[in-house]
Amino acid sequence: MLFLNEQDIRKAVSMKDMIDSIDKAYELYESKQFQMPTRMQVAKDSNTLIVMPCITKEAIGTKLVTSFPENTELPTLHGLVVLNSSETGEIKAILDGSFITGFRTGAIGGSAIRHLAKSDASKLAVIGTGVQGLYQTLAACTERTITDIFLYNRTYEKISGFKQELEKWIGDSIRIHTMKTVESAIQDAEIVITATTSFTPVLPDEPKLLSNKLFVGIGSFQPAMREFPEALYAQSDHIYVDSEDAIKESGDLAIPLENKWITRNTIQTMSSYLKSEQNTIHDKSIIFKSTGMALFDVVAADLIYENAVQKGVGKKLI
Amino acid sequence: MLFLNEQDIRKAVSMKDMIDSIDKAYELYESKQFQMPTRMQVAKDSNTLIVMPCITKEAIGTKLVTSFPENTELPTLHGLVVLNSSETGEIKAILDGSFITGFRTGAIGGSAIRHLAKSDASKLAVIGTGVQGLYQTLAACTERTITDIFLYNRTYEKISGFKQELEKWIGDSIRIHTMKTVESAIQDAEIVITATTSFTPVLPDEPKLLSNKLFVGIGSFQPAMREFPEALYAQSDHIYVDSEDAIKESGDLAIPLENKWITRNTIQTMSSYLKSEQNTIHDKSIIFKSTGMALFDVVAADLIYENAVQKGVGKKLI
Repeated sequence: MLFLNEQDIRKAVSMKDMIDSIDKAYELYESKQFQMPTRMQVAKDSNTLIVMPCITKEAIGTKLVTSFPENTELPTLHGLVVLNSSETGEIKAILDGSFITGFRTGAIGGSAIRHLAKSDASKLAVIGTGVQGLYQTLAACTERTITDIFLYNRTYEKISGFKQELEKWIGDSIRIHTMKTVESAIQDAEIVITATTSFTPVLPDEPKLLSNKLFVGIGSFQPAMREFPEALYAQSDHIYVDSEDAIKESGDLAIPLENKWITRNTIQTMSSYLKSEQNTIHDKSIIFKSTGMALFDVVAADLIYENAVQKGVGKKLI
Repeated sequence: MLFLNEQDIRKAVSMKDMIDSIDKAYELYESKQFQMPTRMQVAKDSNTLIVMPCITKEAIGTKLVTSFPENTELPTLHGLVVLNSSETGEIKAILDGSFITGFRTGAIGGSAIRHLAKSDASKLAVIGTGVQGLYQTLAACTERTITDIFLYNRTYEKISGFKQELEKWIGDSIRIHTMKTVESAIQDAEIVITATTSFTPVLPDEPKLLSNKLFVGIGSFQPAMREFPEALYAQSDHIYVDSEDAIKESGDLAIPLENKWITRNTIQTMSSYLKSEQNTIHDKSIIFKSTGMALFDVVAADLIYENAVQKGVGKKLI
């Protein structure tokens, strides 16, 4: 049994490996080769324990996360992923839940960019410079030769810390622009990533600024949360989701459907898109929306574990 | 975050400590100060992942167990308990699930003996010499000055290994008798523990052999499983259970109720018995039946963790 903390996981896998594991998870999702019950939530006052198990042919993974929204000094989320063998039930590894979640969520955006962005896309806008914005940026830079990154955050002062952290990962060969308005941030970008916890659109409702780009929506994971403005849907001819559940879970899909800005048949799962191997022609903007699922965690955790064993990384517990 | 394996747990707590934690769990159970949803089961073929969370005022505990009944060389069960702070959600410890389950289940029997056995009871019969039989025996010896232990097992040859293991724990000051029949094993015993996985009664259906003793039933945890014979119920004037759920879960209660050998009002929870502080007069035999619950795990895990921190035991993970 191995314990793998953030450093171990970073040694074990690259972002490219993680994106490969997301693509593998889509294959399993499309062929329905998994058991993934609805997440279990146990609440006490405003605090919640969330349990997310998933069984595939190759592994059993259970993510446990506690959400304590009133934490001020400590993080509000704490978690781990327990990985068991699907052949014997043995516990193979326990992994840092916060890092694996952050890293694999970055990779979900990375996979969307791998398959949906123009091959020569070089200009990236990132709206929301929190932890997830960082992983999204790393993933984008893994999949395209990015030359310019435009950063926007509601609290402008927070961008400089993000920029410093980003440079630790990607060096200083990419131009990083700190923008004061969201309009200027997305203006020239070919890829726009939103990674906020907003309940109202964070992008401008201006058709001209929203045309002919790939939009990767990471933030909204509840029906009342939204990052995308109404005008974006008219500018887009294809909407892709990481799972069917995203359609109900995210306000960026549930609200447009309810308001009839889009119809259900314009939404396709990434898994079916990848399976069809169709060369969809995208004349307009493309939307990709993710809310995540436990299947990603178990496939990612299993790859991390296999690589960790090969590389001799991690702490042996038994 | 601490990792606590079997050796660490044994260093951190005594069986007496564990029995104290069971009594504490009964207090919480009686005052309903906990959140314990129905266990979650994810099945794939004959294999199952079982997730058992419980939140109390003091801790959050989640037990994960995989059941792989077709394992031959490896154990069929693998598990761990994750303990989080109920104040911040932080992960405090990860504990060996098999050992904590075995040890606390022993302590459940020990608590029953503490509160229900005659104070001078000295003769113990143990039917079923598996791992759980061992913990039950240790717990009984913790609570009463046992002078004689009568061991019976369906496969006679397995008793000698059990006896050797038992002597490692309790030394050789207690006489251990290896019996060839269950009748001879229980004949003189004042306390009888059954710890088998039987689907048919393992005790003889003979009133004389069943009178004026304390029976601790640990084995039957499914409605089709039974250890106790019909005659026992007529010989008993009180039946105690570790939780309300045991009444549905165990065939040692569900079947007698269905057959009207007993009525529902003869069954009382240990928690209400302990709260009432009544000096119930027991003229006849007493039955205690346990099927366990996640509340025991979280209270036990929290005590183990607190002691482990004080004693500097365990492996620091973060």
